[in-house]
Amino acid sequence: MKKIVIIGNGNWGTSIAKVIAENVSRTTGFEKEVSMYVHEEMYNGQKLSEYINENNCNPIYLPDVKLPSNVRAFTDLSLADTADIIIVCIPHQFLSLIKSIKAKKDAFAINLCKGFVIEDKELLMPSEYIRKVLNIDCCCLMGANIASEVALEKISECTVGYTKKSQVKWIKKMFDNSYFRTKLIPYNKGIEVCGGLKNIVSLAFGIVRGMKWGSNAEAIVFRMGLIEIKRFCKLIKASFFGFESCCVGDLLASCISGRNFKCGIEMGSCKTLIDEIEKNMGGQKLQGPDTAKTVVEWMNSQSLKPENFSFIFTIYKICYLNGTCEDLKEALRSSY
Amino acid sequence: MKKIVIIGNGNWGTSIAKVIAENVSRTTGFEKEVSMYVHEEMYNGQKLSEYINENNCNPIYLPDVKLPSNVRAFTDLSLADTADIIIVCIPHQFLSLIKSIKAKKDAFAINLCKGFVIEDKELLMPSEYIRKVLNIDCCCLMGANIASEVALEKISECTVGYTKKSQVKWIKKMFDNSYFRTKLIPYNKGIEVCGGLKNIVSLAFGIVRGMKWGSNAEAIVFRMGLIEIKRFCKLIKASFFGFESCCVGDLLASCISGRNFKCGIEMGSCKTLIDEIEKNMGGQKLQGPDTAKTVVEWMNSQSLKPENFSFIFTIYKICYLNGTCEDLKEALRSSY
Repeated sequence: MKKIVIIGNGNWGTSIAKVIAENVSRTTGFEKEVSMYVHEEMYNGQKLSEYINENNCNPIYLPDVKLPSNVRAFTDLSLADTADIIIVCIPHQFLSLIKSIKAKKDAFAINLCKGFVIEDKELLMPSEYIRKVLNIDCCCLMGANIASEVALEKISECTVGYTKKSQVKWIKKMFDNSYFRTKLIPYNKGIEVCGGLKNIVSLAFGIVRGMKWGSNAEAIVFRMGLIEIKRFCKLIKASFFGFESCCVGDLLASCISGRNFKCGIEMGSCKTLIDEIEKNMGGQKLQGPDTAKTVVEWMNSQSLKPENFSFIFTIYKICYLNGTCEDLKEALRSSY
Repeated sequence: MKKIVIIGNGNWGTSIAKVIAENVSRTTGFEKEVSMYVHEEMYNGQKLSEYINENNCNPIYLPDVKLPSNVRAFTDLSLADTADIIIVCIPHQFLSLIKSIKAKKDAFAINLCKGFVIEDKELLMPSEYIRKVLNIDCCCLMGANIASEVALEKISECTVGYTKKSQVKWIKKMFDNSYFRTKLIPYNKGIEVCGGLKNIVSLAFGIVRGMKWGSNAEAIVFRMGLIEIKRFCKLIKASFFGFESCCVGDLLASCISGRNFKCGIEMGSCKTLIDEIEKNMGGQKLQGPDTAKTVVEWMNSQSLKPENFSFIFTIYKICYLNGTCEDLKEALRSSY
C-alpha cells in the first residue's frame, strides 16, 4: 500500500490534495488517508491543522471547498520519512524546507512547484533540486492549473514528466479523472521551464494591456515570450514542449487570469512601482520580477548575453534598474 | 515607377491603404498615388468614393482616421489592369470579383484575405486562387492585425510570404515602418492556414468563456486549437508556422478580441443560436461557423475523418447539426 504525503497547504497544495484523496478512495494500492503537511498558523484562535481536520476545509487558502474526509492535515514533517510518494507543492523560495526529510530509498517525489533554484551558481529546476536533496527520483506535474478552478472541478489538464515507467500507473491513478486530465511524458527539465518563465511573460502582457497598446501588441508579447521560452530551453540544453499544457497552455492561462498579469495591468495603467505592488500584497514577492532577476543574474554569472531575451531583460530592467513600462516598446520591436 | 492598386475598402483595406500611402510617399520607386478600389455605396446622399476623395476619410469603415491625401478611391476595377502590384483585401467570399481583372504580365499580387476557397472540390488558399485567376505571382500578408489598431498606429507585426526574391524590397518599402513590423519568409500555403482556422478556435474559446468553464479550460481550447491547425497543415502538405505572427500571434489576438470570440461568448452565456447572431449582424456571415462548414464538407468530400479535429468538428456540429455548447466538453477531454 503506497503512502502519499503532500508537502504544502496553500491554494494549489490543498486543491491537489482534494483530487488525490478523491481518486485514491476509488482505487486500490494506496493507503486511504492522504497526509497534507501544514505550515502551522492560527485561524480564529484555533490551530489551522486542527481546523482542517475537524471541518474538512482549509479556511485560509481554499475556503469555499469541502475536502474529502481522507485528507489529513499534519505538522510534523518527519511523517514524510515514511511516505512512498512525496508530493512537493510549496513556493519554490521555501524549497529548502525539505532538507529535514529522510526519504525512504524506494520512495519517489513529484514536484508541483514552479520557478528556479540557484545552487552554487547552477540553475536548477525544482525537481532537480528535490532529487539532489532527497536522493530519490522526482517527477514533475506542470500545466495550466489555476488551483481554485481545479478545486471547483472545472475541466483542466496537466503535463506530468515521469522518471521511471513503473511510476506511470501510480501517477495516473492519483491524478487523472474526468475533470483533471493527466498526460504523461518522460521527464525532461524542459517541462518545468515555462512554469518559471511564464510569470515574466504574463507580467509584460499585463503591462501592455495596462498601457492600452492593443491586442496586436499583446499578441507580439505572447508570441515572442514563447520564443524566449524556447530559446531558454535551448540555452540550458532542455527539450521544448511548446504545444503541451506545461508550455503554451500554462502561458495562456497566466496571460488571461494570472496574478502577474493583473499586477502588470496596474503597473501599466497606474504606473505603480513593483515595490508598492508587493507592499500591497502584504510583502509577498511577485513571481515575475523575482524570476526575471534570478534568470538575468544567472545569465550574467555565466557570461551569457541577454540580447535574445528582450522581454525577460526588459522586465528585469523595469523592476530593478529604474526602467519604465515605456521600455517595453523597444522589446516589441525586436525581430524574432 | 510601380503602380499600386488595393482591391477593397473595408476596415482592413482602408487601414492598409493608409500604411502603404504613408510609406510610399517617403520612399522612391512607386507612383505616389495609391489607388483603392471602392465597392460603391451611398453615404449621407453622396457616393462613398467621392466622399473618401473629398474628405480623406472612409466614413463607413474607418470613420475616425485621417487618410493620407495620396490614397485615391476609384470604382472602375479595370484600373487594376494597369497596376504593377495588386493588393487583394476583400472578404474571401467575394474573391471571384477579381475575375474581371486582366493583370499585367509582370505584375504581382499580395493577398490579405483570410479564409479558404473551394474550387472543383479542391481547397485553395486565397493566394492560390488569385494566382490561378490572375495568372501572376501572389504573395500573402497575414498576422495578428486588428485593423483599427494598425490604423491608430499601435505597434503591430505581420508575416509576409513572398514568391520571388525580387519582391522583397518592394514589400519592405510598402509595409514596414516603426509601428507595422513586417517579417518576410518564402511563401508556403501554411502561412495562410491559421488565418482561416483561427476563427473556429476563437469561436470555441468564446463559447467556453461564455459557459464560465474557467481559464484552465480556455487554455485547453487554445492549445488543442493550435494542434488542430498544425494537423491541418500536415493534412494539406503545408508547412506549419506555429511561432510566427501568422499563427500563434493571430490566434491569440482573435481569442482576446476577435468578433468570433465575442459572438462565442454570447452563444455560451445566452444560448443564442448562430442564426440569430448572424441576423443581429445584419445577415453578415460569421467566419468561424462558415469556415468550419467549408473545412468539414471538404474533409467529407475527400473521405478524410475529422476524428483528430475535435474542435473544428464540434463547432460545425453546434452550428449546423443541432449540437449544443455543452458538446464542447467532450472536445476538451480529447487527448492530444
